[in-house]
Amino acid sequence: MSDLVRLSLSIEQPLFDQLEKLVRKSGYVNRSEFVRDLIRDRLVRTEWDKDEEVLGTITLVYDHHRRQLAEKLIDLQHHHHTAVLVTTHVHLTQHLCAEVILVRGRAHLIQKLADLIHQQKGVLHSELSMTSTGAELH
Amino acid sequence: MSDLVRLSLSIEQPLFDQLEKLVRKSGYVNRSEFVRDLIRDRLVRTEWDKDEEVLGTITLVYDHHRRQLAEKLIDLQHHHHTAVLVTTHVHLTQHLCAEVILVRGRAHLIQKLADLIHQQKGVLHSELSMTSTGAELH
Amino acid sequence: MSDLVRLSLSIEQPLFDQLEKLVRKSGYVNRSEFVRDLIRDRLVRTEWDKDEEVLGTITLVYDHHRRQLAEKLIDLQHHHHTAVLVTTHVHLTQHLCAEVILVRGRAHLIQKLADLIHQQKGVLHSELSMTSTGAELH
Amino acid sequence: MSDLVRLSLSIEQPLFDQLEKLVRKSGYVNRSEFVRDLIRDRLVRTEWDKDEEVLGTITLVYDHHRRQLAEKLIDLQHHHHTAVLVTTHVHLTQHLCAEVILVRGRAHLIQKLADLIHQQKGVLHSELSMTSTGAELH
Repeated sequence: MSDLVRLSLSIEQPLFDQLEKLVRKSGYVNRSEFVRDLIRDRLVRTEWDKDEEVLGTITLVYDHHRRQLAEKLIDLQHHHHTAVLVTTHVHLTQHLCAEVILVRGRAHLIQKLADLIHQQKGVLHSELSMTSTGAELH
Repeated sequence: MSDLVRLSLSIEQPLFDQLEKLVRKSGYVNRSEFVRDLIRDRLVRTEWDKDEEVLGTITLVYDHHRRQLAEKLIDLQHHHHTAVLVTTHVHLTQHLCAEVILVRGRAHLIQKLADLIHQQKGVLHSELSMTSTGAELH
Repeated sequence: MSDLVRLSLSIEQPLFDQLEKLVRKSGYVNRSEFVRDLIRDRLVRTEWDKDEEVLGTITLVYDHHRRQLAEKLIDLQHHHHTAVLVTTHVHLTQHLCAEVILVRGRAHLIQKLADLIHQQKGVLHSELSMTSTGAELH
Repeated sequence: MSDLVRLSLSIEQPLFDQLEKLVRKSGYVNRSEFVRDLIRDRLVRTEWDKDEEVLGTITLVYDHHRRQLAEKLIDLQHHHHTAVLVTTHVHLTQHLCAEVILVRGRAHLIQKLADLIHQQKGVLHSELSMTSTGAELH
């Protein structure tokens, strides 16, 4: 466990009230832990900008009856197979699939794979979510 | 201009150092303004429509050696087992795990589960990504 | 002693060579007796109780470059989508995929899906493992 | 595509009849493809014996309320984290989980991990299924 230091901030009264509500609603035991998590979340997004190695999740919903879409999606993933850790596939309905692709690699490569997937016809929605590999948050 | 109040927080030394770097690099004149913006960003993300059925992905990185964390995370998921479709778990290192939880349900329930997971000690990072179930995009 | 009939098969040269090695190493006097035993082993595995609800895992390795195989596999799974809980896909090499399909349903339906997958050209190996749903073990 | 050769076998009339029934019931278009798959399945099990690198699936059903079981299972997997590719977790009921662990490594190490998991109290059922990494079946 690391040493703790005091951090003293000034904040507008209305924003402070909103913060209090957020902390309570989110179930945190105290404000400090809540703000520490905000900082950690922000650190993760900074890595992304710096093109460090990141962990990401691409979530997509698609119509598997769309001609050759399934093959195209697998092709794209194999083409980036050093970045793709695992793909989890759930059959939502007879037509629709949800797929979650867990990826690790340089941020710009991950972003490119996400863009390529996003562009495929028949992909109804896709979303890239960025996460740290955890090393520096430890 | 609103009245300013003092907000005093405790924070681990290494995280404090990272914060200092972030503030400097981002061109903020002071720490307070930086943290106030983090809080504002978080407020924006709580403005979701709370009633729609959504598909979501909760991605987290955690230290599995943290006492009873693994059990706590499974408990939380079972408690929401009607919303949890599947959890995919990858072992990043001897200590760190990445987990992707695919969820489907009312937005406010999904948000609540994500908050509960986020606040567990030992969870280094977690991110909720909301996606449509695809029905209305079809 | 039963009457013997001739069975004539076509087989790829590399697989034939592997068969020859297997026969020799296993100490069989001839190829025919070896293949007859393979068929007998397979018969034993069809002796399941066809009515129980089971949990099963179908593990397969396939060449995703095989024309339309990926689409065919997804079609088969969607056609049985009430039985398929989740599919996990790992990219082994640029060409080869491993897929694990977690299924739950009546044993004979699970067996049928496993057979359909097994017989697709380009599926290099597939294996059905049947497990209890746990209810009666509890 | 490899060259095909003819393989001619002698087989007892009753076994031939059983084979015909199996081929038909399994939905294969011809006998040759059925027998080729029997040979491929057998090759995979030989690798296993030879302690080559294999792909395996450990499927288990467990009661997550069993004290410290979830942590024990994650510990075991992290201890073998070079062999564990991914774990997929499904919540069957409020109490019961199904987990599928996809593993790759030397056969005896995989077998050892499967044995350790099998021995844990609270694991109601577990099953190891062996698969090839696909290289020599290609």
